[in-house]
Amino acid sequence: MLNKKTLEKFRVAPGKKFRLKDIDPNWRGDGATKNLSNAELKISAQKELEENLQELAEQQAKLYAHDRWSVLIVLQAMDAAGKDGMVKHVTSGLNPQGCDVYSFKAPSAEELDHSYLWRIMRVSPARGKITIFNRSHYEEVLVVKVHPEYLKRQKLPEPLITKKIWEERYEDINNFERHLARNGTVILKFFLHVSKEEQKKRFLERLEDPEKHWKFSAQDLNERQYWSDYMRAYEEALAATSTKWAPWYVIPADNKAMARVLVSNILARAIDDLKLKFPVVTGEEKLALEEAHKRLQAE
Amino acid sequence: MLNKKTLEKFRVAPGKKFRLKDIDPNWRGDGATKNLSNAELKISAQKELEENLQELAEQQAKLYAHDRWSVLIVLQAMDAAGKDGMVKHVTSGLNPQGCDVYSFKAPSAEELDHSYLWRIMRVSPARGKITIFNRSHYEEVLVVKVHPEYLKRQKLPEPLITKKIWEERYEDINNFERHLARNGTVILKFFLHVSKEEQKKRFLERLEDPEKHWKFSAQDLNERQYWSDYMRAYEEALAATSTKWAPWYVIPADNKAMARVLVSNILARAIDDLKLKFPVVTGEEKLALEEAHKRLQAE
Repeated sequence: MLNKKTLEKFRVAPGKKFRLKDIDPNWRGDGATKNLSNAELKISAQKELEENLQELAEQQAKLYAHDRWSVLIVLQAMDAAGKDGMVKHVTSGLNPQGCDVYSFKAPSAEELDHSYLWRIMRVSPARGKITIFNRSHYEEVLVVKVHPEYLKRQKLPEPLITKKIWEERYEDINNFERHLARNGTVILKFFLHVSKEEQKKRFLERLEDPEKHWKFSAQDLNERQYWSDYMRAYEEALAATSTKWAPWYVIPADNKAMARVLVSNILARAIDDLKLKFPVVTGEEKLALEEAHKRLQAE
Repeated sequence: MLNKKTLEKFRVAPGKKFRLKDIDPNWRGDGATKNLSNAELKISAQKELEENLQELAEQQAKLYAHDRWSVLIVLQAMDAAGKDGMVKHVTSGLNPQGCDVYSFKAPSAEELDHSYLWRIMRVSPARGKITIFNRSHYEEVLVVKVHPEYLKRQKLPEPLITKKIWEERYEDINNFERHLARNGTVILKFFLHVSKEEQKKRFLERLEDPEKHWKFSAQDLNERQYWSDYMRAYEEALAATSTKWAPWYVIPADNKAMARVLVSNILARAIDDLKLKFPVVTGEEKLALEEAHKRLQAE
Protein backbone atom coordinates (compact mmCIF):
# COMPACT_ATOMS: atom_id res chain seq x y z
CA MET A 1 0.00 0.00 0.00
CA LEU A 2 1.17 3.54 -0.68
CA ASN A 3 1.75 5.59 2.43
CA LYS A 4 -0.69 8.29 3.54
CA LYS A 5 1.72 11.08 2.76
CA THR A 6 1.92 10.02 -0.89
CA LEU A 7 -1.86 9.87 -1.15
CA GLU A 8 -2.25 13.30 0.46
CA LYS A 9 -0.31 14.85 -2.42
CA PHE A 10 -3.25 14.17 -4.71
CA ARG A 11 -5.95 15.55 -2.42
CA VAL A 12 -7.20 19.06 -3.23
CA ALA A 13 -6.93 21.01 0.03
CA PRO A 14 -10.21 22.79 0.91
CA GLY A 15 -10.13 26.53 0.41
CA LYS A 16 -6.59 26.63 -1.00
CA LYS A 17 -5.34 27.84 -4.36
CA PHE A 18 -4.90 24.89 -6.63
CA ARG A 19 -3.45 24.40 -10.12
CA LEU A 20 -3.98 21.29 -12.21
CA LYS A 21 -0.61 21.79 -13.89
CA ASP A 22 1.11 21.15 -10.56
CA ILE A 23 0.11 17.49 -10.88
CA ASP A 24 1.90 15.45 -13.54
CA PRO A 25 -0.61 13.26 -15.46
CA ASN A 26 2.25 10.86 -16.10
CA TRP A 27 3.19 10.28 -12.46
CA ARG A 28 4.97 6.91 -12.11
CA GLY A 29 5.30 6.63 -8.35
CA ASP A 30 7.64 8.25 -5.85
CA GLY A 31 10.11 5.49 -5.10
CA ALA A 32 11.93 2.84 -7.09
CA THR A 33 9.07 2.52 -9.61
CA LYS A 34 10.01 5.89 -11.12
CA ASN A 35 12.84 4.38 -13.13
CA LEU A 36 11.10 1.24 -14.33
CA SER A 37 10.34 0.64 -17.99
CA ASN A 38 6.66 0.83 -19.00
CA ALA A 39 6.36 -2.94 -19.04
CA GLU A 40 8.02 -3.32 -15.64
CA LEU A 41 5.86 -0.56 -14.15
CA LYS A 42 2.74 -2.29 -15.39
CA ILE A 43 3.70 -5.56 -13.69
CA SER A 44 4.59 -3.82 -10.46
CA ALA A 45 1.35 -1.78 -10.44
CA GLN A 46 -0.70 -4.85 -11.30
CA LYS A 47 0.66 -6.63 -8.26
CA GLU A 48 -0.11 -3.70 -6.01
CA LEU A 49 -3.62 -3.36 -7.45
CA GLU A 50 -4.33 -7.00 -6.61
CA GLU A 51 -3.25 -6.46 -3.01
CA ASN A 52 -5.46 -3.37 -2.77
CA LEU A 53 -8.45 -5.19 -4.21
CA GLN A 54 -8.07 -7.99 -1.69
CA GLU A 55 -7.97 -5.45 1.12
CA LEU A 56 -10.96 -3.65 -0.41
CA ALA A 57 -13.00 -6.86 -0.59
CA GLU A 58 -12.48 -7.38 3.15
CA GLN A 59 -13.44 -3.78 3.90
CA GLN A 60 -16.57 -4.10 1.77
CA ALA A 61 -17.67 -7.23 3.63
CA LYS A 62 -17.45 -5.34 6.93
CA LEU A 63 -19.26 -2.30 5.51
CA TYR A 64 -22.09 -4.54 4.31
CA ALA A 65 -22.40 -6.48 7.57
CA HIS A 66 -22.20 -3.33 9.70
CA ASP A 67 -25.02 -1.80 7.62
CA ARG A 68 -24.79 1.80 8.88
CA TRP A 69 -22.26 3.61 6.68
CA SER A 70 -22.23 3.82 2.90
CA VAL A 71 -19.58 4.93 0.40
CA LEU A 72 -20.07 7.18 -2.61
CA ILE A 73 -17.37 7.36 -5.28
CA VAL A 74 -17.60 10.13 -7.87
CA LEU A 75 -15.58 9.72 -11.07
CA GLN A 76 -15.09 12.67 -13.39
CA ALA A 77 -12.74 13.05 -16.32
CA MET A 78 -12.29 14.08 -19.93
CA ASP A 79 -13.18 11.48 -22.58
CA ALA A 80 -10.82 8.49 -22.82
CA ALA A 81 -9.30 9.22 -19.42
CA GLY A 82 -10.19 5.73 -18.26
CA LYS A 83 -13.42 6.06 -16.24
CA ASP A 84 -15.00 2.84 -17.56
CA GLY A 85 -11.79 0.87 -17.05
CA MET A 86 -11.48 2.28 -13.54
CA VAL A 87 -15.02 1.13 -12.67
CA LYS A 88 -14.35 -2.31 -14.13
CA HIS A 89 -11.07 -2.84 -12.29
CA VAL A 90 -11.95 -1.32 -8.92
CA THR A 91 -15.24 -3.27 -8.71
CA SER A 92 -13.70 -6.53 -9.94
CA GLY A 93 -13.04 -7.79 -6.42
CA LEU A 94 -16.28 -6.51 -4.89
CA ASN A 95 -19.46 -8.42 -4.08
CA PRO A 96 -21.95 -7.01 -6.62
CA GLN A 97 -24.75 -7.28 -4.02
CA GLY A 98 -23.14 -4.44 -2.11
CA CYS A 99 -22.07 -2.33 -5.06
CA ASP A 100 -24.02 -0.14 -7.52
CA VAL A 101 -22.73 1.77 -10.53
CA TYR A 102 -24.61 4.65 -12.17
CA SER A 103 -23.58 6.30 -15.42
CA PHE A 104 -25.13 9.70 -15.86
CA LYS A 105 -25.96 10.70 -19.42
CA ALA A 106 -27.62 13.89 -20.67
CA PRO A 107 -30.69 14.46 -18.45
CA SER A 108 -34.04 13.03 -19.60
CA ALA A 109 -37.25 15.09 -19.91
CA GLU A 110 -38.42 13.78 -16.53
CA GLU A 111 -35.09 14.67 -14.95
CA LEU A 112 -35.18 18.21 -16.37
CA ASP A 113 -38.58 18.64 -14.72
CA HIS A 114 -36.78 18.59 -11.38
CA SER A 115 -33.70 20.17 -9.84
CA TYR A 116 -30.42 18.71 -11.08
CA LEU A 117 -29.81 16.98 -7.73
CA TRP A 118 -33.08 15.02 -8.00
CA ARG A 119 -31.67 12.21 -10.13
CA ILE A 120 -28.54 12.17 -7.98
CA MET A 121 -30.37 11.86 -4.66
CA ARG A 122 -32.57 9.06 -6.03
CA VAL A 123 -29.55 6.79 -6.48
CA SER A 124 -27.48 7.93 -3.51
CA PRO A 125 -26.02 4.88 -1.77
CA ALA A 126 -28.03 2.80 0.70
CA ARG A 127 -26.46 1.89 4.04
CA GLY A 128 -23.88 -0.88 3.73
CA LYS A 129 -23.28 -0.21 0.05
CA ILE A 130 -20.62 1.22 -2.22
CA THR A 131 -22.05 3.32 -5.04
CA ILE A 132 -19.99 4.56 -7.98
CA PHE A 133 -21.05 7.54 -10.09
CA ASN A 134 -19.53 7.43 -13.58
CA ARG A 135 -19.97 11.15 -14.24
CA SER A 136 -22.21 12.92 -11.75
CA HIS A 137 -23.87 16.14 -10.58
CA TYR A 138 -20.52 17.79 -11.35
CA GLU A 139 -21.43 17.82 -15.04
CA GLU A 140 -23.73 20.70 -13.99
CA VAL A 141 -20.68 22.89 -13.30
CA LEU A 142 -18.45 21.40 -16.01
CA VAL A 143 -20.05 20.66 -19.38
CA VAL A 144 -22.90 23.11 -18.64
CA LYS A 145 -20.39 25.81 -17.69
CA VAL A 146 -18.29 25.22 -20.80
CA HIS A 147 -21.49 25.30 -22.90
CA PRO A 148 -23.73 27.79 -21.09
CA GLU A 149 -26.34 27.40 -23.85
CA TYR A 150 -27.19 24.04 -22.16
CA LEU A 151 -28.61 26.03 -19.24
CA LYS A 152 -31.39 27.21 -21.55
CA ARG A 153 -32.53 23.62 -22.05
CA GLN A 154 -32.82 23.02 -18.32
CA LYS A 155 -36.30 24.59 -18.13
CA LEU A 156 -35.22 26.91 -15.34
CA PRO A 157 -37.41 29.98 -14.80
CA GLU A 158 -35.65 32.91 -16.53
CA PRO A 159 -35.27 35.09 -13.41
CA LEU A 160 -33.25 32.33 -11.72
CA ILE A 161 -30.53 32.24 -14.39
CA THR A 162 -28.11 34.84 -13.07
CA LYS A 163 -24.38 35.43 -13.01
CA LYS A 164 -24.33 33.84 -9.54
CA ILE A 165 -25.55 30.48 -10.80
CA TRP A 166 -22.19 28.67 -10.68
CA GLU A 167 -21.42 29.88 -7.18
CA GLU A 168 -24.93 28.80 -6.14
CA ARG A 169 -24.37 25.38 -7.64
CA TYR A 170 -21.02 24.91 -5.87
CA GLU A 171 -22.71 25.91 -2.62
CA ASP A 172 -25.72 23.63 -3.12
CA ILE A 173 -23.51 20.70 -4.09
CA ASN A 174 -21.32 21.17 -1.00
CA ASN A 175 -24.38 21.37 1.24
CA PHE A 176 -25.95 18.35 -0.39
CA GLU A 177 -22.81 16.28 0.07
CA ARG A 178 -22.46 17.41 3.68
CA HIS A 179 -26.04 16.27 4.29
CA LEU A 180 -25.20 12.82 2.94
CA ALA A 181 -22.00 12.73 5.02
CA ARG A 182 -23.88 13.71 8.18
CA ASN A 183 -26.20 10.78 7.58
CA GLY A 184 -23.56 8.14 7.06
CA THR A 185 -22.11 8.43 3.53
CA VAL A 186 -18.35 8.54 3.06
CA ILE A 187 -17.72 10.51 -0.13
CA LEU A 188 -14.61 10.28 -2.29
CA LYS A 189 -14.29 12.20 -5.55
CA PHE A 190 -11.73 11.41 -8.21
CA PHE A 191 -10.73 13.49 -11.22
CA LEU A 192 -8.82 11.27 -13.63
CA HIS A 193 -6.23 13.69 -14.89
CA VAL A 194 -5.14 12.77 -18.40
CA SER A 195 -2.94 14.91 -20.65
CA LYS A 196 -4.17 16.25 -23.98
CA GLU A 197 -1.43 14.23 -25.75
CA GLU A 198 -2.50 11.01 -24.07
CA GLN A 199 -6.13 11.64 -25.08
CA LYS A 200 -5.01 12.04 -28.71
CA LYS A 201 -3.17 8.73 -28.49
CA ARG A 202 -6.20 6.92 -27.05
CA PHE A 203 -8.61 8.47 -29.57
CA LEU A 204 -6.31 7.27 -32.38
CA GLU A 205 -6.31 3.77 -30.88
CA ARG A 206 -10.10 3.80 -30.86
CA LEU A 207 -10.22 4.96 -34.47
CA GLU A 208 -7.68 2.40 -35.65
CA ASP A 209 -9.08 -0.64 -33.82
CA PRO A 210 -12.49 -1.81 -35.17
CA GLU A 211 -13.30 -3.38 -31.78
CA LYS A 212 -12.97 0.03 -30.17
CA HIS A 213 -14.95 1.98 -32.77
CA TRP A 214 -18.10 1.90 -30.63
CA LYS A 215 -16.24 3.84 -27.95
CA PHE A 216 -15.70 6.82 -30.25
CA SER A 217 -18.14 9.50 -31.30
CA ALA A 218 -17.48 12.59 -33.41
CA GLN A 219 -18.81 14.59 -30.46
CA ASP A 220 -15.70 13.54 -28.47
CA LEU A 221 -13.48 15.36 -30.94
CA ASN A 222 -15.67 18.46 -30.75
CA GLU A 223 -15.30 18.56 -26.97
CA ARG A 224 -11.53 18.22 -27.31
CA GLN A 225 -11.55 21.68 -28.90
CA TYR A 226 -12.71 23.08 -25.56
CA TRP A 227 -9.84 21.46 -23.66
CA SER A 228 -8.58 24.63 -21.96
CA ASP A 229 -12.13 25.70 -21.08
CA TYR A 230 -12.68 22.32 -19.46
CA MET A 231 -9.40 22.53 -17.54
CA ARG A 232 -10.44 25.93 -16.19
CA ALA A 233 -13.90 24.61 -15.25
CA TYR A 234 -12.34 21.60 -13.49
CA GLU A 235 -9.87 23.77 -11.62
CA GLU A 236 -12.61 26.09 -10.39
CA ALA A 237 -15.03 23.29 -9.51
CA LEU A 238 -12.44 21.19 -7.68
CA ALA A 239 -11.21 24.18 -5.70
CA ALA A 240 -14.76 25.18 -4.75
CA THR A 241 -16.06 21.72 -3.85
CA SER A 242 -13.18 19.85 -2.25
CA THR A 243 -14.34 19.72 1.36
CA LYS A 244 -13.43 17.94 4.55
CA TRP A 245 -16.52 15.74 4.16
CA ALA A 246 -16.15 15.12 0.40
CA PRO A 247 -12.57 15.65 -0.82
CA TRP A 248 -11.45 15.68 -4.44
CA TYR A 249 -8.41 13.70 -5.51
CA VAL A 250 -6.61 14.51 -8.76
CA ILE A 251 -5.47 11.14 -10.05
CA PRO A 252 -2.65 11.11 -12.65
CA ALA A 253 -4.23 9.02 -15.40
CA ASP A 254 -1.83 8.86 -18.34
CA ASN A 255 -0.74 5.58 -16.83
CA LYS A 256 -3.90 3.51 -16.32
CA ALA A 257 -2.36 0.97 -13.98
CA MET A 258 -0.96 3.64 -11.66
CA ALA A 259 -4.34 5.43 -11.61
CA ARG A 260 -6.08 2.22 -10.53
CA VAL A 261 -3.54 1.63 -7.80
CA LEU A 262 -4.14 5.10 -6.40
CA VAL A 263 -7.94 4.96 -6.46
CA SER A 264 -8.19 1.46 -4.96
CA ASN A 265 -5.71 2.46 -2.28
CA ILE A 266 -7.51 5.63 -1.27
CA LEU A 267 -10.83 3.79 -1.23
CA ALA A 268 -9.60 0.88 0.92
CA ARG A 269 -8.00 3.28 3.39
CA ALA A 270 -11.14 5.39 3.69
CA ILE A 271 -13.24 2.38 4.68
CA ASP A 272 -10.47 1.13 6.97
CA ASP A 273 -10.55 4.53 8.72
CA LEU A 274 -14.13 3.78 9.85
CA LYS A 275 -12.67 1.00 12.04
CA LEU A 276 -15.61 -1.28 11.38
CA LYS A 277 -15.95 -4.68 12.99
CA PHE A 278 -18.29 -7.51 12.12
CA PRO A 279 -21.31 -7.15 14.41
CA VAL A 280 -20.85 -9.24 17.57
CA VAL A 281 -23.79 -11.09 19.04
CA THR A 282 -24.88 -10.43 22.62
CA GLY A 283 -25.09 -13.08 25.37
CA GLU A 284 -28.79 -13.63 24.72
CA GLU A 285 -28.34 -13.91 20.96
CA LYS A 286 -25.49 -16.37 21.55
CA LEU A 287 -27.81 -18.60 23.55
CA ALA A 288 -30.35 -18.48 20.73
CA LEU A 289 -27.63 -19.46 18.23
CA GLU A 290 -26.58 -22.41 20.42
CA GLU A 291 -30.20 -23.49 20.72
CA ALA A 292 -30.61 -23.32 16.93
CA HIS A 293 -27.40 -25.29 16.51
CA LYS A 294 -28.69 -28.08 18.78
CA ARG A 295 -32.11 -28.24 17.11
CA LEU A 296 -30.57 -28.56 13.66
CA GLN A 297 -28.20 -31.33 14.75
CA ALA A 298 -31.07 -33.21 16.40
CA GLU A 299 -33.20 -33.16 13.22
CA MET B 1 -59.14 38.44 -0.56
CA LEU B 2 -57.42 39.33 2.70
CA ASN B 3 -54.88 42.10 2.38
CA LYS B 4 -51.16 41.44 2.43
CA LYS B 5 -50.68 43.10 5.80
CA THR B 6 -53.13 40.69 7.43
CA LEU B 7 -51.38 37.71 5.88
CA GLU B 8 -47.97 38.99 6.99
CA LYS B 9 -49.06 38.73 10.63
CA PHE B 10 -48.99 34.96 10.32
CA ARG B 11 -45.59 34.68 8.68
CA VAL B 12 -42.69 33.72 10.96
CA ALA B 13 -40.01 36.35 10.36
CA PRO B 14 -36.60 34.78 9.58
CA GLY B 15 -34.08 35.04 12.39
CA LYS B 16 -36.45 36.72 14.85
CA LYS B 17 -37.64 35.57 18.27
CA PHE B 18 -41.03 34.00 17.89
CA ARG B 19 -43.63 32.69 20.34
CA LEU B 20 -46.55 30.47 19.37
CA LYS B 21 -48.65 31.91 22.16
CA ASP B 22 -48.63 35.30 20.41
CA ILE B 23 -50.94 33.82 17.78
CA ASP B 24 -54.53 33.08 18.84
CA PRO B 25 -55.63 29.66 17.51
CA ASN B 26 -59.18 30.97 17.55
CA TRP B 27 -58.54 34.00 15.30
CA ARG B 28 -61.80 35.06 13.62
CA GLY B 29 -60.59 37.74 11.24
CA ASP B 30 -59.56 41.35 11.76
CA GLY B 31 -62.55 43.27 10.51
CA ALA B 32 -66.30 42.93 10.80
CA THR B 33 -66.13 39.11 10.92
CA LYS B 34 -64.75 39.28 14.46
CA ASN B 35 -68.21 39.80 15.94
CA LEU B 36 -70.14 37.28 13.86
CA SER B 37 -71.73 34.19 15.40
CA ASN B 38 -70.10 30.85 14.58
CA ALA B 39 -72.74 30.06 11.98
CA GLU B 40 -72.45 33.50 10.34
CA LEU B 41 -68.65 33.29 10.33
CA LYS B 42 -68.82 29.91 8.62
CA ILE B 43 -71.02 31.26 5.81
CA SER B 44 -68.83 34.32 5.33
CA ALA B 45 -65.62 32.23 5.30
CA GLN B 46 -67.16 29.70 2.94
CA LYS B 47 -67.91 32.47 0.45
CA GLU B 48 -64.39 33.81 0.67
CA LEU B 49 -62.90 30.34 0.29
CA GLU B 50 -64.86 29.84 -2.92
CA GLU B 51 -63.49 33.08 -4.35
CA ASN B 52 -59.97 32.08 -3.39
CA LEU B 53 -60.35 28.66 -4.97
CA GLN B 54 -61.52 30.20 -8.22
CA GLU B 55 -58.52 32.51 -8.24
CA LEU B 56 -56.28 29.56 -7.38
CA ALA B 57 -57.64 27.46 -10.25
CA GLU B 58 -56.70 30.25 -12.68
CA GLN B 59 -53.24 30.56 -11.17
CA GLN B 60 -52.73 26.80 -11.41
CA ALA B 61 -53.66 26.78 -15.08
CA LYS B 62 -50.97 29.39 -15.77
CA LEU B 63 -48.40 27.56 -13.66
CA TYR B 64 -49.08 24.37 -15.61
CA ALA B 65 -48.95 26.02 -19.04
CA HIS B 66 -45.83 28.03 -18.19
CA ASP B 67 -44.09 24.79 -17.09
CA ARG B 68 -41.03 26.32 -15.39
CA TRP B 69 -41.96 27.00 -11.76
CA SER B 70 -43.42 24.54 -9.28
CA VAL B 71 -45.07 24.99 -5.87
CA LEU B 72 -44.44 22.95 -2.73
CA ILE B 73 -46.86 23.21 0.19
CA VAL B 74 -45.80 21.73 3.51
CA LEU B 75 -48.53 21.04 6.08
CA GLN B 76 -47.59 20.29 9.67
CA ALA B 77 -49.80 20.13 12.75
CA MET B 78 -50.81 18.21 15.83
CA ASP B 79 -53.39 15.44 15.38
CA ALA B 80 -56.93 16.58 14.57
CA ALA B 81 -55.75 20.06 13.59
CA GLY B 82 -57.36 19.67 10.19
CA LYS B 83 -54.57 18.67 7.79
CA ASP B 84 -56.67 16.17 5.81
CA GLY B 85 -59.60 18.60 5.55
CA MET B 86 -57.20 21.35 4.45
CA VAL B 87 -55.83 19.16 1.64
CA LYS B 88 -59.33 18.18 0.56
CA HIS B 89 -60.67 21.74 0.46
CA VAL B 90 -57.66 23.53 -0.99
CA THR B 91 -57.28 20.98 -3.80
CA SER B 92 -61.02 20.83 -4.53
CA GLY B 93 -60.77 23.45 -7.28
CA LEU B 94 -57.50 22.26 -8.76
CA ASN B 95 -56.88 20.19 -11.86
CA PRO B 96 -55.60 16.88 -10.42
CA GLN B 97 -53.24 16.51 -13.40
CA GLY B 98 -51.19 19.38 -12.02
CA CYS B 99 -51.43 18.51 -8.34
CA ASP B 100 -49.84 15.75 -6.21
CA VAL B 101 -50.40 14.99 -2.54
CA TYR B 102 -47.99 12.93 -0.43
CA SER B 103 -48.70 11.78 3.11
CA PHE B 104 -45.56 10.83 4.96
CA LYS B 105 -45.91 8.00 7.47
CA ALA B 106 -43.22 6.42 9.64
CA PRO B 107 -40.25 5.70 7.34
CA SER B 108 -40.02 2.27 5.68
CA ALA B 109 -36.96 0.00 5.88
CA GLU B 110 -35.88 1.17 2.42
CA GLU B 111 -36.29 4.80 3.44
CA LEU B 112 -34.24 4.30 6.61
CA ASP B 113 -31.44 2.94 4.44
CA HIS B 114 -30.99 6.49 3.10
CA SER B 115 -30.79 9.99 4.51
CA TYR B 116 -34.12 11.39 5.70
CA LEU B 117 -34.28 13.80 2.75
CA TRP B 118 -34.12 10.93 0.24
CA ARG B 119 -37.85 10.15 0.30
CA ILE B 120 -38.59 13.89 0.27
CA MET B 121 -36.45 14.68 -2.77
CA ARG B 122 -37.95 11.75 -4.70
CA VAL B 123 -41.40 13.36 -4.63
CA SER B 124 -40.36 17.00 -4.84
CA PRO B 125 -42.64 18.81 -7.30
CA ALA B 126 -42.08 18.66 -11.06
CA ARG B 127 -42.16 21.90 -13.05
CA GLY B 128 -45.68 23.19 -13.59
CA LYS B 129 -47.07 21.29 -10.62
CA ILE B 130 -48.38 21.97 -7.13
CA THR B 131 -47.27 19.34 -4.62
CA ILE B 132 -48.70 19.10 -1.11
CA PHE B 133 -46.84 17.36 1.71
CA ASN B 134 -49.21 16.15 4.44
CA ARG B 135 -46.51 15.90 7.11
CA SER B 136 -42.98 16.17 5.79
CA HIS B 137 -39.24 16.18 6.49
CA TYR B 138 -40.09 18.37 9.47
CA GLU B 139 -41.16 15.26 11.39
CA GLU B 140 -37.40 14.67 11.67
CA VAL B 141 -37.08 17.68 13.99
CA LEU B 142 -40.52 17.33 15.62
CA VAL B 143 -41.65 13.82 16.54
CA VAL B 144 -38.04 12.55 16.48
CA LYS B 145 -36.95 15.41 18.74
CA VAL B 146 -39.82 14.82 21.18
CA HIS B 147 -38.98 11.09 21.16
CA PRO B 148 -35.19 11.00 20.73
CA GLU B 149 -35.29 7.19 21.08
CA TYR B 150 -36.59 7.19 17.47
CA LEU B 151 -33.14 8.37 16.36
CA LYS B 152 -31.80 4.96 17.37
CA ARG B 153 -34.06 3.27 14.82
CA GLN B 154 -32.76 5.45 12.00
CA LYS B 155 -29.72 3.24 11.45
CA LEU B 156 -27.36 6.22 11.70
CA PRO B 157 -23.73 5.39 12.47
CA GLU B 158 -23.21 5.96 16.22
CA PRO B 159 -20.48 8.61 15.89
CA LEU B 160 -22.86 10.82 13.89
CA ILE B 161 -25.48 11.06 16.64
CA THR B 162 -24.26 14.08 18.57
CA LYS B 163 -25.77 16.96 20.49
CA LYS B 164 -25.49 19.06 17.34
CA ILE B 165 -27.86 16.84 15.37
CA TRP B 166 -30.93 19.13 15.54
CA GLU B 167 -28.94 22.19 14.50
CA GLU B 168 -27.45 20.15 11.66
CA ARG B 169 -30.91 19.06 10.56
CA TYR B 170 -32.25 22.64 10.57
CA GLU B 171 -29.26 23.70 8.51
CA ASP B 172 -29.56 20.81 6.04
CA ILE B 173 -33.30 21.39 5.64
CA ASN B 174 -32.79 25.10 4.98
CA ASN B 175 -30.07 24.36 2.42
CA PHE B 176 -32.18 21.68 0.76
CA GLU B 177 -35.15 24.02 0.45
CA ARG B 178 -32.95 26.82 -0.89
CA HIS B 179 -31.66 24.43 -3.54
CA LEU B 180 -35.22 23.66 -4.63
CA ALA B 181 -36.07 27.38 -4.60
CA ARG B 182 -33.01 28.22 -6.71
CA ASN B 183 -34.21 25.70 -9.27
CA GLY B 184 -37.78 26.93 -9.56
CA THR B 185 -39.82 25.70 -6.58
CA VAL B 186 -41.92 28.18 -4.62
CA ILE B 187 -42.14 26.80 -1.06
CA LEU B 188 -44.89 27.65 1.44
CA LYS B 189 -45.02 25.99 4.85
CA PHE B 190 -48.09 26.00 7.07
CA PHE B 191 -48.34 25.05 10.72
CA LEU B 192 -52.01 24.54 11.56
CA HIS B 193 -52.14 25.96 15.06
CA VAL B 194 -54.88 24.29 17.07
CA SER B 195 -55.43 24.72 20.82
CA LYS B 196 -55.21 21.82 23.24
CA GLU B 197 -58.88 22.36 24.17
CA GLU B 198 -59.98 22.23 20.53
CA GLN B 199 -58.04 18.99 20.03
CA LYS B 200 -59.88 17.46 23.01
CA LYS B 201 -63.20 18.49 21.47
CA ARG B 202 -62.30 16.95 18.10
CA PHE B 203 -60.98 13.73 19.65
CA LEU B 204 -64.25 13.38 21.57
CA GLU B 205 -66.20 13.88 18.33
CA ARG B 206 -64.17 11.11 16.74
CA LEU B 207 -64.78 8.79 19.68
CA GLU B 208 -68.50 9.51 19.80
CA ASP B 209 -69.23 9.23 16.07
CA PRO B 210 -68.87 5.67 14.67
CA GLU B 211 -68.16 7.09 11.20
CA LYS B 212 -65.14 8.91 12.60
CA HIS B 213 -63.75 6.02 14.65
CA TRP B 214 -61.26 5.10 11.92
CA LYS B 215 -59.69 8.52 12.33
CA PHE B 216 -58.76 7.83 15.96
CA SER B 217 -55.93 5.72 17.35
CA ALA B 218 -54.89 5.27 20.98
CA GLN B 219 -51.48 6.54 19.90
CA ASP B 220 -53.04 9.99 19.30
CA LEU B 221 -53.92 10.23 22.98
CA ASN B 222 -50.40 9.20 23.97
CA GLU B 223 -48.92 11.98 21.87
CA ARG B 224 -51.30 14.48 23.46
CA GLN B 225 -49.41 13.91 26.72
CA TYR B 226 -46.36 15.48 25.08
CA TRP B 227 -48.24 18.62 24.06
CA SER B 228 -45.85 21.12 25.64
CA ASP B 229 -42.81 19.24 24.28
CA TYR B 230 -44.33 19.42 20.82
CA MET B 231 -45.08 23.13 21.15
CA ARG B 232 -41.44 23.75 22.13
CA ALA B 233 -40.20 21.63 19.20
CA TYR B 234 -42.49 23.52 16.79
CA GLU B 235 -41.38 26.89 18.12
CA GLU B 236 -37.72 26.01 17.73
CA ALA B 237 -38.14 24.41 14.31
CA LEU B 238 -40.27 27.23 12.89
CA ALA B 239 -37.86 29.88 14.17
CA ALA B 240 -34.85 28.02 12.73
CA THR B 241 -36.34 27.17 9.34
CA SER B 242 -38.55 30.10 8.35
CA THR B 243 -36.51 31.61 5.53
CA LYS B 244 -36.94 34.13 2.77
CA TRP B 245 -37.11 31.28 0.25
CA ALA B 246 -39.35 28.97 2.32
CA PRO B 247 -41.37 30.88 4.94
CA TRP B 248 -43.48 29.31 7.67
CA TYR B 249 -46.99 30.57 8.32
CA VAL B 250 -48.72 29.85 11.63
CA ILE B 251 -52.35 29.36 10.70
CA PRO B 252 -54.96 29.70 13.47
CA ALA B 253 -56.84 26.41 13.14
CA ASP B 254 -59.47 26.21 15.87
CA ASN B 255 -61.82 27.53 13.22
CA LYS B 256 -61.45 25.25 10.20
CA ALA B 257 -63.15 27.58 7.72
CA MET B 258 -60.91 30.51 8.64
CA ALA B 259 -57.81 28.33 8.37
CA ARG B 260 -58.79 27.29 4.85
CA VAL B 261 -59.42 30.90 3.83
CA LEU B 262 -55.94 31.88 5.00
CA VAL B 263 -54.07 29.02 3.32
CA SER B 264 -55.89 29.32 -0.01
CA ASN B 265 -55.32 33.07 0.04
CA ILE B 266 -51.59 32.86 0.75
CA LEU B 267 -51.20 30.19 -1.90
CA ALA B 268 -53.07 32.08 -4.64
CA ARG B 269 -51.08 35.24 -3.89
CA ALA B 270 -47.77 33.43 -4.01
CA ILE B 271 -48.45 32.12 -7.51
CA ASP B 272 -49.85 35.49 -8.57
CA ASP B 273 -46.57 37.07 -7.45
CA LEU B 274 -44.75 35.08 -10.15
CA LYS B 275 -46.64 37.20 -12.72
CA LEU B 276 -47.07 34.28 -15.08
CA LYS B 277 -48.69 34.59 -18.45
CA PHE B 278 -49.90 31.88 -20.77
CA PRO B 279 -47.07 31.23 -23.22
CA VAL B 280 -47.47 33.36 -26.35
CA VAL B 281 -46.65 31.90 -29.71
CA THR B 282 -44.06 33.55 -31.96
CA GLY B 283 -44.70 34.80 -35.51
CA GLU B 284 -43.41 31.57 -37.02
CA GLU B 285 -45.49 29.39 -34.69
CA LYS B 286 -48.53 31.52 -35.48
CA LEU B 287 -48.12 30.80 -39.18
CA ALA B 288 -47.89 27.07 -38.39
CA LEU B 289 -51.12 27.32 -36.37
CA GLU B 290 -52.90 29.10 -39.24
CA GLU B 291 -51.66 26.47 -41.64
CA ALA B 292 -52.94 23.69 -39.35
CA HIS B 293 -56.27 25.51 -39.05
CA LYS B 294 -56.66 25.65 -42.80
CA ARG B 295 -55.70 22.00 -43.33
CA LEU B 296 -58.21 20.83 -40.74
CA GLN B 297 -61.01 22.91 -42.26
CA ALA B 298 -60.21 21.58 -45.75
CA GLU B 299 -60.43 17.94 -44.60
